[in-house]
Amino acid sequence: MTDPLVLFMPSGKRGRFPRGTPVLEAARQLGVYVESVCGGRGICGRCQVEVTEGHFAKHKITSSADHISPVGPKELRYAEKREIKRGRRLSCSATIEGDLVIDVPQDAVVNAQVVRKKATDRIIERYPAVHLCYVEVDEPDMHAPLGDLDRLKAALRRDWEYERLETDFALVPQVQSILRAGKWAVTAAVYHDEEADAGRIIALWPGLHNQAYGVACDIGSTTIAMHLVSLLSGRIVASSGATNPQIRFGEDLMSRVSYVMMNPDGREAMTTAVRAAIDELIGKVCAEGGVGRNDILDLVFVGNPVMHHLFLGIDPTELGGAPFALAVSGAIHLRAAELGLGVNAGARTYILPCIAGHVGADSAGATLSEGPHRQDDMMLLVDVGTNAEIVLGNAERVVACSSPTGPAFEGAEISGGQRAAPGAIERVRIDPETLEPRYRVIGVEQWSNEDGFEEAAGATGVTGICGSGIIEVIAEMFLTGIISEDGVIDGALAATTQRIVESGRTFSYVLKNGEPQITVTQNDVRAIQLAKAALYAGIRLLMDKQGVDHVDSIRFAGAFGSFIDPKYAMVLGLIPDCDLEKVKAVGNAAGDGALMALLNRNHRREIEQTVRRIEKIETALEPAFQQLFVNAMALPNKVDPFPKLAAAVRLPERKVLGGDDGPDGSARPRRRSREERDARRQRG
Amino acid sequence: MTDPLVLFMPSGKRGRFPRGTPVLEAARQLGVYVESVCGGRGICGRCQVEVTEGHFAKHKITSSADHISPVGPKELRYAEKREIKRGRRLSCSATIEGDLVIDVPQDAVVNAQVVRKKATDRIIERYPAVHLCYVEVDEPDMHAPLGDLDRLKAALRRDWEYERLETDFALVPQVQSILRAGKWAVTAAVYHDEEADAGRIIALWPGLHNQAYGVACDIGSTTIAMHLVSLLSGRIVASSGATNPQIRFGEDLMSRVSYVMMNPDGREAMTTAVRAAIDELIGKVCAEGGVGRNDILDLVFVGNPVMHHLFLGIDPTELGGAPFALAVSGAIHLRAAELGLGVNAGARTYILPCIAGHVGADSAGATLSEGPHRQDDMMLLVDVGTNAEIVLGNAERVVACSSPTGPAFEGAEISGGQRAAPGAIERVRIDPETLEPRYRVIGVEQWSNEDGFEEAAGATGVTGICGSGIIEVIAEMFLTGIISEDGVIDGALAATTQRIVESGRTFSYVLKNGEPQITVTQNDVRAIQLAKAALYAGIRLLMDKQGVDHVDSIRFAGAFGSFIDPKYAMVLGLIPDCDLEKVKAVGNAAGDGALMALLNRNHRREIEQTVRRIEKIETALEPAFQQLFVNAMALPNKVDPFPKLAAAVRLPERKVLGGDDGPDGSARPRRRSREERDARRQRG
Repeated sequence: MTDPLVLFMPSGKRGRFPRGTPVLEAARQLGVYVESVCGGRGICGRCQVEVTEGHFAKHKITSSADHISPVGPKELRYAEKREIKRGRRLSCSATIEGDLVIDVPQDAVVNAQVVRKKATDRIIERYPAVHLCYVEVDEPDMHAPLGDLDRLKAALRRDWEYERLETDFALVPQVQSILRAGKWAVTAAVYHDEEADAGRIIALWPGLHNQAYGVACDIGSTTIAMHLVSLLSGRIVASSGATNPQIRFGEDLMSRVSYVMMNPDGREAMTTAVRAAIDELIGKVCAEGGVGRNDILDLVFVGNPVMHHLFLGIDPTELGGAPFALAVSGAIHLRAAELGLGVNAGARTYILPCIAGHVGADSAGATLSEGPHRQDDMMLLVDVGTNAEIVLGNAERVVACSSPTGPAFEGAEISGGQRAAPGAIERVRIDPETLEPRYRVIGVEQWSNEDGFEEAAGATGVTGICGSGIIEVIAEMFLTGIISEDGVIDGALAATTQRIVESGRTFSYVLKNGEPQITVTQNDVRAIQLAKAALYAGIRLLMDKQGVDHVDSIRFAGAFGSFIDPKYAMVLGLIPDCDLEKVKAVGNAAGDGALMALLNRNHRREIEQTVRRIEKIETALEPAFQQLFVNAMALPNKVDPFPKLAAAVRLPERKVLGGDDGPDGSARPRRRSREERDARRQRG
Repeated sequence: MTDPLVLFMPSGKRGRFPRGTPVLEAARQLGVYVESVCGGRGICGRCQVEVTEGHFAKHKITSSADHISPVGPKELRYAEKREIKRGRRLSCSATIEGDLVIDVPQDAVVNAQVVRKKATDRIIERYPAVHLCYVEVDEPDMHAPLGDLDRLKAALRRDWEYERLETDFALVPQVQSILRAGKWAVTAAVYHDEEADAGRIIALWPGLHNQAYGVACDIGSTTIAMHLVSLLSGRIVASSGATNPQIRFGEDLMSRVSYVMMNPDGREAMTTAVRAAIDELIGKVCAEGGVGRNDILDLVFVGNPVMHHLFLGIDPTELGGAPFALAVSGAIHLRAAELGLGVNAGARTYILPCIAGHVGADSAGATLSEGPHRQDDMMLLVDVGTNAEIVLGNAERVVACSSPTGPAFEGAEISGGQRAAPGAIERVRIDPETLEPRYRVIGVEQWSNEDGFEEAAGATGVTGICGSGIIEVIAEMFLTGIISEDGVIDGALAATTQRIVESGRTFSYVLKNGEPQITVTQNDVRAIQLAKAALYAGIRLLMDKQGVDHVDSIRFAGAFGSFIDPKYAMVLGLIPDCDLEKVKAVGNAAGDGALMALLNRNHRREIEQTVRRIEKIETALEPAFQQLFVNAMALPNKVDPFPKLAAAVRLPERKVLGGDDGPDGSARPRRRSREERDARRQRG
């Protein structure tokens, strides 16, 4: 009689096992990760699985109730103390008695507490670097006078197959009393990240300890974002954010680098500030999640190179000028205590690798999360800040660069610009007939032309325009013919609408009258053109390196990407032509990457290997970059066609550029005839 | 044409290499350890070897001047800066051009600065766990934006074949500036102890750094002994000792354990005290050796279990009673900074394993030093303190135990007893005719009956009798018939000499008249009998375990062993019969073992493996121990013959024990007739 066939879902791994094999044992043999703290004693309850009944033709399996052993004494004992959900079994107790389909329950790692919703919550297969191991240790024996710690190690070898274990020294003097407090039963936290290294006992509790948490943190220049997650279930128990207190030393990265250069204790002050903020945020997520700081055993951080260096206490001055030398680019392992973070004294910390001097661990995190290297399609991954960090590639080859977009996309250098905050215009539509605008502001549901808008906007009112608003208004101005593909505001329209006004030698578009008046000036358009040209030129440079003239999908990471409408981004030519449904905002992908590295140590190896093989392009060293930049000044682009965009959005006809339409906007715009405008309105 | 044959001395390793192979490269291939900091650049001068000329028939080698390349440019450059001794060559520069015999110079590790002189200074083959590696690191390159640390690791991989290296985090923020200070040339200290682990960069200096030191330390209950040694040459640059300040908490081990039990902060106070004393001693040996504390990169410690635990900050209470459970028995790796020692911030620390609850890392060190496990002879290794730690074995099998000798051997519980210090009687001879004694005291060259003794003894005078003096006086009393083999002082002699005096129901021997009067009482004899019986019973127990009735050699480790005369120890039956020339005092063998573990990481693996396979005997659990103890009360022993001793020393005839000669000495001793005494004098 053949051995029964067992299929584990969702991994799909399967194998045949003799009748009587515990399900947990079968999972182990197949490399299916089923959590277990007590090592099969039926006391931790972590190893629950669901047994699915039915006939699974595809897998040739008939799974039914008598294919698994009846509920056994271990399960009855456990159920007396804590509930086992209906249909679930303890896999350490239940044995295989026939063909089976086993569902290993997965707590979705991205849940309602995360602001951004994904189409499908993603499941991260768990294989954490820190693992809880319950063991019963031999009592002291004069005939075999091994030390307490040595008998603990022997038990971990026997029950958990750790052949070589080291111990954090700080723990050594405590082992004696913890073993006695637990009456020789203890739970050890074993840290084992790199396969080749010996594992390490980093924490120890008397008896069964059934809680282990980790922190995944993205240190942004503006915002620090943090998830607190159970290492045992993968569940996010709390997520929160805080302003990076380094802002008081300088708004953007380069001003922080300057601060270090100008102030002897500037580096230390910023290091202290960001560590304190992170520690405070840990306190906050712990309070929200009802988790003790001492139960945090592993932490993963990402950040751009300057944030990365300052967090680690490294002088970032070198990053301020060529050759933009990172002090360290590889992944870093350290103890959280070395950063002064108030978590378990033995907690470990992992920092993702940096890709290049301007492409940091945050980009590595986003790469890990979105996974261009895991698929065949040519994926473009863009994170826009003061620098755009750009990754392009597929399983075969990945290239990356950063491009100096400047702060225009963040609303700086724009006359009415402001940070994304309540009161900021974030959406804009312009009527193609009347050229009248309507808009939405952050924090208000109604559009500006809808009933109740004024009330909802309240005392804050409308204060300015943020990055996504700027993109939309300029794109709408282009789509309605207010600006040409060269970005010149058509002064002739001043004759037909009061929205176009002359200001000096150029014209502006009045988005909002009253106090404050918000206008889009010719300079604002130029600033966005420069920023988008830099971004696009960087992308195009990578496309040329890859030898492709289109990309299959685009991922916008970061706050900017979360709020802009991909359509408008493409209308302006921030990004190359692409099926619009293949363009997605992925929010804090860097943080998601940190989460993956926290929950599965294999993802650490994955991103380390990927970063090693990413080809790093330095735009400053590329002769082609300048021409690509010049071409990208036009809307959406001087030379590249946008057929997919054109199929979805009615773009203005491309015009031959006149010699007097210099990109500096100083030349008087060519007047468009009334006939032309009428014709366009009929199409519209 | 066959490749030339090269023989390396003193290791005897040999092999054939193509002409033109650098001698250093040949050494590496054969696994001959030749120091090199600069990795063959000819700048560190550490790789010097001597080329021996002549015909070596046994090895079939004719080594002559033209068998090695002429002095090359690297050597000339080096010789301009620092002298190369005549006959020496830089092995990185000199190449093999014919058959060669190469002497790798070895600085003797035990030199004149060490108090105890060995017949032959021992050479410890060097293979330290910390190694200095000079490298030239690639400068930052925008085309390949690896971090500074990552390029440093790449250089260490390229030049030193470290495939995997981790870095102490504290060093990470410093790498940047050190690389620049050294103009991309730096020296890294790499710690690589366990073969299977990744190496670790623990220190970094700009340019060439050519100094690395280690500390080997034996933490005794009374004395802390320390060597400061060059890890590059193996030379001991300073040795010193200090009183263990824990003495103020309790003279002996058990009183210190009691102190911990009685005082809530007792453990911490003793830990702080011993660490501070060690730190001070480090300062002392550094000053003596002209070495900077920052150049100390590795430290090895040994100590008995209580010292071991207190040093590490572990509560020793469990060691005070059965089952005498060690908190940790295996070897321990930690950073010196975790002990608060003022050495290089990255310095490592290694603590040898403990064998059992009463047989500590000091016994492991002595075992490593004397090496019963390395040879075929049955070696007995004894370290006498309040407990005797006893190891017996050979390459095949090693057994160990401890035996409760009590403090009598240290002069405690003895009426005139005192510690070994100036003024203490350490040597005694008794005239067999007159029964008059003569003696020597510590610090005085003359015997008490020689001219100038009084002047030399000076103000200190004669203050008491130390452990070795006690052994000698009682052995001499036995040899001269003053006491019987049962240890009873012959009161009949009081009639013929004033040296025998009655005191209560027993008799005493007056060793010194005047102030203070020093006598050996019947109780003193009993105390020594009890101590020696415990020691001998332990030894005998191990011999029974081994199934042997004699041992081939005996090593006395520790202070007590250094001062007693093996002959007298055997006359009293402290140790079993053995060729007297095979009985050696080996001084601080525990410290020598620490030194070996410091200079060669393979010795660490050796002692770890040896300790694991040592069979640990707990005397309290052995039914045979009691009978062996009773038998051992007699001088030298009730049942064991001492043929080898008898051949060297004229022992009194063995007498049948009378029923009234109880071991408690309360019975009136049998009077010896004048005739008997006369007869014995004629034999003497």
